[in-house]
Amino acid sequence: MTPPARPTGQNGRMDETPEPPRTRRRRGRPLSPALSREAIADAALAVARTEGYEGLTMAAVGRRLGVAPSALYNHISGKHELLVLLQDAVMGEVSLVELEAAIRGEVPVVAALRAWARSYRDVFAAHPPLIPLIATLPIEGAPSTQRVYETVCAVLARTGLAPEQVLARVIALESFIYGSAYDVDAPADIFEVAGAQERLPALGAAAEAFRAGGGTRATGARNPYADAPFEEGLDLLLAGLGD
Amino acid sequence: MTPPARPTGQNGRMDETPEPPRTRRRRGRPLSPALSREAIADAALAVARTEGYEGLTMAAVGRRLGVAPSALYNHISGKHELLVLLQDAVMGEVSLVELEAAIRGEVPVVAALRAWARSYRDVFAAHPPLIPLIATLPIEGAPSTQRVYETVCAVLARTGLAPEQVLARVIALESFIYGSAYDVDAPADIFEVAGAQERLPALGAAAEAFRAGGGTRATGARNPYADAPFEEGLDLLLAGLGD
Repeated sequence: MTPPARPTGQNGRMDETPEPPRTRRRRGRPLSPALSREAIADAALAVARTEGYEGLTMAAVGRRLGVAPSALYNHISGKHELLVLLQDAVMGEVSLVELEAAIRGEVPVVAALRAWARSYRDVFAAHPPLIPLIATLPIEGAPSTQRVYETVCAVLARTGLAPEQVLARVIALESFIYGSAYDVDAPADIFEVAGAQERLPALGAAAEAFRAGGGTRATGARNPYADAPFEEGLDLLLAGLGD
Repeated sequence: MTPPARPTGQNGRMDETPEPPRTRRRRGRPLSPALSREAIADAALAVARTEGYEGLTMAAVGRRLGVAPSALYNHISGKHELLVLLQDAVMGEVSLVELEAAIRGEVPVVAALRAWARSYRDVFAAHPPLIPLIATLPIEGAPSTQRVYETVCAVLARTGLAPEQVLARVIALESFIYGSAYDVDAPADIFEVAGAQERLPALGAAAEAFRAGGGTRATGARNPYADAPFEEGLDLLLAGLGD
């Protein structure tokens, strides 16, 4: 079976070598790099990951794609649109599966909101340099991002929240999610202070009891103490939301 | 009256001009720039503010103080200690007045925690590039930062929270505060989408109701819609904490 053509992706640039023949060549696509908004978004994400958000320039994205920066302007209007594309590529990774199931009445809304919040945190824990960008960039022109907000607003509107409370709750949840995404990368010893028990008795006792409570995930470089505060905060921020 | 000498501050470098005579010269301090950990912390903060966190290097701090980078090493061990100093300078701006009053039993704990959270958010809303740093930097070697945690843990321990819940609640509150600090700088039209009412009915209705609810502060460049979600989230995260 021929695998389906990947419409986007970091490896989505077409190979300039004509061999072996590819099924998709029948569709008449050119052999030169297939520059598209999707390819530009993927390249922008790769640049932001490796060089940081400050290194994200039209020139750097052009270099990554092997084209002159001027070629990018055939597809996007400039740096602002580059950021919007990047925002949309990342927000498109947030899972809406449970929220959509909740809208169909198949999943309780609080469970769906919790699953969405976890997915949202995990996506941004993988892209911490993007948090300041996403937190302050308008969603105009970003269809995947708009879909996230449309879906979560539709679910929250089913919970009995007053209409003027819906977006406030979304913003409160997002603020919590962004900060929690940083905590996933925090070192496990962030609150360890030598001699704390004597000099800082309340902190020392709190840190000891917290660690004795145990982390929920001890694998990899991830902060093993990030999940308990996140789940606790989510419980509180989702309190009182019924079906 | 002679104003009291400022021990630290961005203008804390002594003037090399011998005129006019200053009261503090009687104390025998040298005329050369008074390099100290405090002066280095202030310079680091100024560099991070103007050039961003990425521009914060020993060389840049040395330039700001008019000394060779090597001179900084007489006071700090390197870049890591520079970041710790910077963290501590910023965390030292967070008001602990109400928390300390709560420990003395003079202020209800929830009111004190709310005042602390507001101050914390406002300090970081003034320094958004420092949020990723503070969120992931250990507090070892940062006495002002340790004092913040000691004080808030002491207050939370008075609320009836189980000991293993105290630090988890601090972390949940902080995560929310960091994300909320970004929202202070978000543009007021962040959720505005042309034609949203038709294409994105739930978001359009939520955004309209939210804006109709009104912002609480309309002055300056500050997002007028940042306070309502912040206060709402705080209510939820402080729920159930009694004296």
